[in-house]
Amino acid sequence: MGAEAVRVSTMEPPPNFEMVDVGIYRSGFPEPANFDFLDSLKLRSIVYLCPEKYPETNVGYLRSRGIRLFHLGTDGNKEPFMTIPKDLITNALSVLLDIRNHPVLIHCKRGKHRTGCLVGCFRKLQNWCLSSVFEEYQRFAGAKSRIADLKYIEMFDVTSIRQCLLGIIYQYHHTCGSQVRRLAYQERS
Amino acid sequence: MGAEAVRVSTMEPPPNFEMVDVGIYRSGFPEPANFDFLDSLKLRSIVYLCPEKYPETNVGYLRSRGIRLFHLGTDGNKEPFMTIPKDLITNALSVLLDIRNHPVLIHCKRGKHRTGCLVGCFRKLQNWCLSSVFEEYQRFAGAKSRIADLKYIEMFDVTSIRQCLLGIIYQYHHTCGSQVRRLAYQERS
Repeated sequence: MGAEAVRVSTMEPPPNFEMVDVGIYRSGFPEPANFDFLDSLKLRSIVYLCPEKYPETNVGYLRSRGIRLFHLGTDGNKEPFMTIPKDLITNALSVLLDIRNHPVLIHCKRGKHRTGCLVGCFRKLQNWCLSSVFEEYQRFAGAKSRIADLKYIEMFDVTSIRQCLLGIIYQYHHTCGSQVRRLAYQERS
Repeated sequence: MGAEAVRVSTMEPPPNFEMVDVGIYRSGFPEPANFDFLDSLKLRSIVYLCPEKYPETNVGYLRSRGIRLFHLGTDGNKEPFMTIPKDLITNALSVLLDIRNHPVLIHCKRGKHRTGCLVGCFRKLQNWCLSSVFEEYQRFAGAKSRIADLKYIEMFDVTSIRQCLLGIIYQYHHTCGSQVRRLAYQERS
């Protein structure tokens, strides 16, 4: 009676949504029902990993919000003949590593296989041990986990990317008295 | 031959590790093998949800790094008689919501049930719809998912906490040209 009801409308994140790191998110394919939630992320870009054309509704949403689409389309890893091109993952990593693209959402169809491979390679760049990289991959892929993806992540060589990262480093940002670790882009002198 | 090998030592995150939001992490019980990784998070505090005493090795680690321990110990939800006390979750949420405690790591034993309940209640505060809250819970609990936990999360009333949150709001921080959404503490005037 005396208490005033606080009415809040709930938001619906895309399937398999999670935060990867500061400014980097992952998910399955976002539907219009997820657009309110995406608004709350204030996205600056999207990395879309399927070969299919981006749906008109989603293109319209991105256009209205000024979100840049990086369409790096590929089929997933399927033995024995299908393999995600290495250059595609390298290009996607360079998008993720450049904080001028943040906040960025990575997505494919289910957020399991292609997204899982990209995030797995990103974790290798972050020096995670392979068993932890695999544990995270499997958490999102669940019963659909693919040995071909695990092999792909293991074999993906991040050495050359590391050597290209001279201008991109981790920095600690001091905001509101707390330390937040994030990727920072530095102009080369 | 000409190429110089870049040697990097890998780090081992605790089991079931993931980022919940800016400044908030979740995991299973951290072992000494995980301390290097925890160092990289620059933690300011830990929310520990098991009733058992914190191991001496972990206490020593926290002390050496100046990390504050919030020991809010409870058994998990087990029907028909065991229920996580509501006050405990309310207290834990107030720790999470105060960015002066960030970066903060939530952990129990496996990072599935108690941690899953706390994160689930946190997502309700963030206005996530219940199906997405459950999907996230199940991603971490896997085959060990408990219906008692899902019921607990559904029934947990966040209205009163919302009313206490007058001084704590979301703000957008502009850092390095990108917008990062995070919880911000504001002193009441």
